[in-house]
Amino acid sequence: MFYHDKKLQYKVRVDKPNPQFARALQQAIGGIEGEIRVCLQYLFQAWNARGPVRYRDMLLDTGTEEMAHIEMLATAVCLNLEGASSSVIDTIVGNDPLMEKIVGGGDPRHYLSGGLGALASDANGVPFNGSWVVSSGNMASDMLANVTAEATGRTLATRLYEMTDDAGMKDMLAFLIARDTMHQQQWLAVLEELGQGNLYNVLPIPNSFPQAQEVQEFSYAFVNTNIDPEQPSAGTNRRWTQGPSLDGR
Amino acid sequence: MFYHDKKLQYKVRVDKPNPQFARALQQAIGGIEGEIRVCLQYLFQAWNARGPVRYRDMLLDTGTEEMAHIEMLATAVCLNLEGASSSVIDTIVGNDPLMEKIVGGGDPRHYLSGGLGALASDANGVPFNGSWVVSSGNMASDMLANVTAEATGRTLATRLYEMTDDAGMKDMLAFLIARDTMHQQQWLAVLEELGQGNLYNVLPIPNSFPQAQEVQEFSYAFVNTNIDPEQPSAGTNRRWTQGPSLDGR
Amino acid sequence: MFYHDKKLQYKVRVDKPNPQFARALQQAIGGIEGEIRVCLQYLFQAWNARGPVRYRDMLLDTGTEEMAHIEMLATAVCLNLEGASSSVIDTIVGNDPLMEKIVGGGDPRHYLSGGLGALASDANGVPFNGSWVVSSGNMASDMLANVTAEATGRTLATRLYEMTDDAGMKDMLAFLIARDTMHQQQWLAVLEELGQGNLYNVLPIPNSFPQAQEVQEFSYAFVNTNIDPEQPSAGTNRRWTQGPSLDGR
Amino acid sequence: MFYHDKKLQYKVRVDKPNPQFARALQQAIGGIEGEIRVCLQYLFQAWNARGPVRYRDMLLDTGTEEMAHIEMLATAVCLNLEGASSSVIDTIVGNDPLMEKIVGGGDPRHYLSGGLGALASDANGVPFNGSWVVSSGNMASDMLANVTAEATGRTLATRLYEMTDDAGMKDMLAFLIARDTMHQQQWLAVLEELGQGNLYNVLPIPNSFPQAQEVQEFSYAFVNTNIDPEQPSAGTNRRWTQGPSLDGR
Amino acid sequence: MFYHDKKLQYKVRVDKPNPQFARALQQAIGGIEGEIRVCLQYLFQAWNARGPVRYRDMLLDTGTEEMAHIEMLATAVCLNLEGASSSVIDTIVGNDPLMEKIVGGGDPRHYLSGGLGALASDANGVPFNGSWVVSSGNMASDMLANVTAEATGRTLATRLYEMTDDAGMKDMLAFLIARDTMHQQQWLAVLEELGQGNLYNVLPIPNSFPQAQEVQEFSYAFVNTNIDPEQPSAGTNRRWTQGPSLDGR
Amino acid sequence: MFYHDKKLQYKVRVDKPNPQFARALQQAIGGIEGEIRVCLQYLFQAWNARGPVRYRDMLLDTGTEEMAHIEMLATAVCLNLEGASSSVIDTIVGNDPLMEKIVGGGDPRHYLSGGLGALASDANGVPFNGSWVVSSGNMASDMLANVTAEATGRTLATRLYEMTDDAGMKDMLAFLIARDTMHQQQWLAVLEELGQGNLYNVLPIPNSFPQAQEVQEFSYAFVNTNIDPEQPSAGTNRRWTQGPSLDGR
Ligand SMILES: [Ca+2]
Ligand SMILES: [Ca+2]
Ligand SMILES: [Ca+2]
Ligand SMILES: [Ca+2]
Ligand SMILES: [Ca+2]
Ligand SMILES: [Ca+2]
Repeated sequence: MFYHDKKLQYKVRVDKPNPQFARALQQAIGGIEGEIRVCLQYLFQAWNARGPVRYRDMLLDTGTEEMAHIEMLATAVCLNLEGASSSVIDTIVGNDPLMEKIVGGGDPRHYLSGGLGALASDANGVPFNGSWVVSSGNMASDMLANVTAEATGRTLATRLYEMTDDAGMKDMLAFLIARDTMHQQQWLAVLEELGQGNLYNVLPIPNSFPQAQEVQEFSYAFVNTNIDPEQPSAGTNRRWTQGPSLDGR
Repeated sequence: MFYHDKKLQYKVRVDKPNPQFARALQQAIGGIEGEIRVCLQYLFQAWNARGPVRYRDMLLDTGTEEMAHIEMLATAVCLNLEGASSSVIDTIVGNDPLMEKIVGGGDPRHYLSGGLGALASDANGVPFNGSWVVSSGNMASDMLANVTAEATGRTLATRLYEMTDDAGMKDMLAFLIARDTMHQQQWLAVLEELGQGNLYNVLPIPNSFPQAQEVQEFSYAFVNTNIDPEQPSAGTNRRWTQGPSLDGR
Repeated sequence: MFYHDKKLQYKVRVDKPNPQFARALQQAIGGIEGEIRVCLQYLFQAWNARGPVRYRDMLLDTGTEEMAHIEMLATAVCLNLEGASSSVIDTIVGNDPLMEKIVGGGDPRHYLSGGLGALASDANGVPFNGSWVVSSGNMASDMLANVTAEATGRTLATRLYEMTDDAGMKDMLAFLIARDTMHQQQWLAVLEELGQGNLYNVLPIPNSFPQAQEVQEFSYAFVNTNIDPEQPSAGTNRRWTQGPSLDGR
Repeated sequence: MFYHDKKLQYKVRVDKPNPQFARALQQAIGGIEGEIRVCLQYLFQAWNARGPVRYRDMLLDTGTEEMAHIEMLATAVCLNLEGASSSVIDTIVGNDPLMEKIVGGGDPRHYLSGGLGALASDANGVPFNGSWVVSSGNMASDMLANVTAEATGRTLATRLYEMTDDAGMKDMLAFLIARDTMHQQQWLAVLEELGQGNLYNVLPIPNSFPQAQEVQEFSYAFVNTNIDPEQPSAGTNRRWTQGPSLDGR
Repeated sequence: MFYHDKKLQYKVRVDKPNPQFARALQQAIGGIEGEIRVCLQYLFQAWNARGPVRYRDMLLDTGTEEMAHIEMLATAVCLNLEGASSSVIDTIVGNDPLMEKIVGGGDPRHYLSGGLGALASDANGVPFNGSWVVSSGNMASDMLANVTAEATGRTLATRLYEMTDDAGMKDMLAFLIARDTMHQQQWLAVLEELGQGNLYNVLPIPNSFPQAQEVQEFSYAFVNTNIDPEQPSAGTNRRWTQGPSLDGR
Repeated sequence: MFYHDKKLQYKVRVDKPNPQFARALQQAIGGIEGEIRVCLQYLFQAWNARGPVRYRDMLLDTGTEEMAHIEMLATAVCLNLEGASSSVIDTIVGNDPLMEKIVGGGDPRHYLSGGLGALASDANGVPFNGSWVVSSGNMASDMLANVTAEATGRTLATRLYEMTDDAGMKDMLAFLIARDTMHQQQWLAVLEELGQGNLYNVLPIPNSFPQAQEVQEFSYAFVNTNIDPEQPSAGTNRRWTQGPSLDGR
């Protein structure tokens, strides 16, 4: 069961509203690297979990936290759109540039569909898509999917940080970036635990499948599809082309 | 900010697992009439709200409750898929009917992608789509969208109730149906309040637009596009074709 | 069976072509609040109707009218893109600003895919999606979905009206707004008729389900998920938290 | 402007309702080869047309006819679902096979979302998608897109014809197949007219682009990407690998 | 089986990076008229082919070539985004116009999600959609679909050519346009071969269906849905309204 | 540039055609865990790569190999549908069960749209979606996304292996599973190399962002959102809740 209070997890402040930044923030709400995705992904993994209860609990804890991140970002979108409302009517007449700003640089649906509110879409107005919610029934697969989500999510957040010089927005993003740092740690810690202290022990995923049933001559060989003898692929002396495998097989 | 505990809002019990009913339940999770939609819809409306705080609070309260409904339904999907796992390997060999049940009547992705867990999709495996999340910035529009969501949602829930004879599932659905009953009431109560006790006073929505600017000869006239004099449209003596308008204009 | 003539339902005139406004108008064609949606929604409801013939006829009449609205808006998009064609080649060379206008503020696919014609997409180029077409088999649900569509549609149309100072466009929108006013009336009139003169009598929707089978202690109780005693939810003295229910039960 | 009467373009009769055939018919309504697509495609091409009025008129005439085909097919879906309704409650209890038929072989959303009515989706419940509506601003491209749509549409209709032994359904499909035969003719006739009596004269499409600006050594050469000298690609003596080009250049 | 080398099929050079043109180029990568679509369409048709091996081989040859076109265009997108990276941080502060260029005129996801790389999306950021991949099992339908794809694709490429004055980009597009010229030829050559030298002999598609089973009075009649006697449809003396049919039936 | 020959990478044999297994195989072609996704993902990462050439080469090598996997699976789908064709017409008449098999257990579009060929869709007929193609511009993020894709892909392949008792299909899947084993190794090997022999050194991703700018008190703290003191979250003594972080900070 879920509960809430009326506070944000961390303060959200916008010094100078910017509809274009509001649009960019949408990627962190409804984009594939965004918070709706991780929220639903962790919660579905929790609800579908059949293994040790500590993993389920952890997923519920963090999935619930991600709800609070959607909340913070939606609030930030609204604050970045604040003030645009009244100016719309006043300045449109004979003033193409503002029109351009609203319709062009920003997301026109922020005004047309949302009345200056956040949407469940990405920075191009493409709606959030439930196919992104990975819950595979295999804990190692899921943890990798989660680290990936936090890695692409943190990459996105740092790019948003670089795009703005609004001190309030930078502060909020610095918080979200910190959380992504932690979340990368925690999903990897589960992988390490699944591998009894060595992440590579979980390989190959899923390790419930008897490797003897693989066509084993292809299990550890790099396939070179480059047919040009004059410009061969680089990296022939690297770990993926020679030497022992990571999982020691 | 959001919180959780480890309890469900209401008990979820499945007496006889049924992968086909698991598939049907997905409509109530990730379909357009489902709980992910209302959850995000109410929460986005809350986060985007600029009016009286009581509406925002109410939206937060109920949006958070809907999280608990997704949780109940995901749990129900898992329980309906329970037991299918081991039998898959055992009985597939030389046994087409089971294969048919898993791949045909049920959602094959429940096994292939979810490992017998719930997905963020509808009963046909079509992913949840963020475009369904209505938050228009106009309170009356939003409340109508919410009543509609609860009306189609309750219609869906009663159909699921009719499709199953599993006592546990019927009980869970009877709870969700009750909540939909209440939620229809509460969104309509806001509409009534917006209309100072008479819902029709909010018409036309949005009522901020000066009706004098409409092309008024078309504002209250029914347009008949039926060109067949021998089989005219019925209902010519009804309120939409004659008499005073609902809003008294 | 359907027919047409070569006239528009109402005149469409653009005084000063504007590719950015063409983009904004797309929301009213292919967006979730747009005319393709209501057109198909009313027609599917008509074709699926099994009740009194007057409702079916009414849905056919208005669904057909909405075809004419798509036609008007597509015409308006074309007129707003008019004149852009020849200038593209002439001025692109060494002239970034125009490039920006075409690719940025407007929808680049208006030129790239449409050759300066309207598309079946929204203001962000996201294609029309059939999932928006609600036809539930329950007349009250459908009527609520229809009022909602007209409420969000009229909200959109008034915002488009505010965004432009083109007299021709304002006139066209003033007509479409008037039609939305009427359509809100007519769907609500059906709801009122279904409730024998009192809309609340249709509650809960669907009212074919025996309420005795609900878990009734939850049918009329507001669930407060706010756990903060210091900042409780407002509205505790409102109709959704206390007093008689709207449907008198 | 559009009009309707209460008749179908051609009679629709179902001798023995079949929910599974209802599902298959959905492909002809909301699938990429279906009637919503051609209806909107021809109408958008008409509304966007800037050339000779006879093409615009023809597109309007046929686009309007396609509306009547959606109507016929939606009616057919309803008739195929007829009778299923009451049996649902009666026979579900203790009767897995029927459950399987409704949820498995048929589209469960026909019941869950549509109340036994047609949907704006394909045979797998995937919603109609506006991206399929081709209106390129180039008449030759559009005519090719239209012939293709009628070719894949007629292919679909003949397969539906083969799948059913219901005399009523076969008759309806025999009508729709006949219309597809004609529509293939008419779009090709425009292409022939554009080529002054020889379709190949319209090549390459668009022929407004000066071919001298192409990198001409690649304009009429077949590129063989097969690198296996022992199993070379067949067809080296065919018109696409040698001899004069179709357009005589 | 597939192979590659490290060369491009044709040189790709960008003289002056332009993020807005990078966005426009995306339509040719991930749009419905783009190279991912034709690549997958030809390859799926090849893999699904059951007829003469020369058609299968031809489809494989050209499908593989299209891979090289995606590669060229992705390279072009990267080059057009080159140099934008460092300037982002430097100039955003106090410099709205650049912000506008990145977020507005260009695709913000090129930076936010792609780190200045190409995406599998169209010019509006709408993802590539597998529904566009036509492989109908009917060779004539497929060839028409392929000519259409090359016609709309070449139309797109010539528009991109017109939009840019970058000599490198014009050269690359002049190559791609030449390939589209050829590909239109080759698919039509198959159609001609299927019709024993006369393309019209393949009509109606599919010609495996016995035309005697059509409702033949509707097989060659133009249906006029225009009801206005004062403004009748033009073209009553054209080949689609009178005279012999194209297929001589 | 890309090339092909007419061989498959590994033999594909189907002993007993099975349309339902054909449907399940679609998940491995056009599903989020499937081969189109990894093919495009690796190729886009290669084309977008700006770092050491050995990573780019490796991505090209493996992306090209994945093309061969799509080819194998499409071939497998066709073989599983083989023989169904003629029986369709023969047995439909008066034979509901087969109808059920084709429309229900299998994907009806395999016949209706594909003429018994493979589609660019998943096991529910949901089209491949380009949003799944991750190419972030950050090598560590991309490698994690790639390991995840191979982990969920191998999980899917082993489930398909369990679902079938067809020796030919088991052999093909045993090959694909082996390749997934290898691909997991190779992407992890790059991560290890990026971390100078210790994968954890790449944390946090992206490590180009100065951690001093994070709100550091939240960078390594687990946030417990469980409010129930009686049923606290398990795992309080685990590496994600206490002790040194994985990256030693
Ligand atoms: Ca987060
Ligand atoms: Ca609910
Ligand atoms: Ca309208
Ligand atoms: Ca038709
Ligand atoms: Ca090409
Ligand atoms: Ca693979």
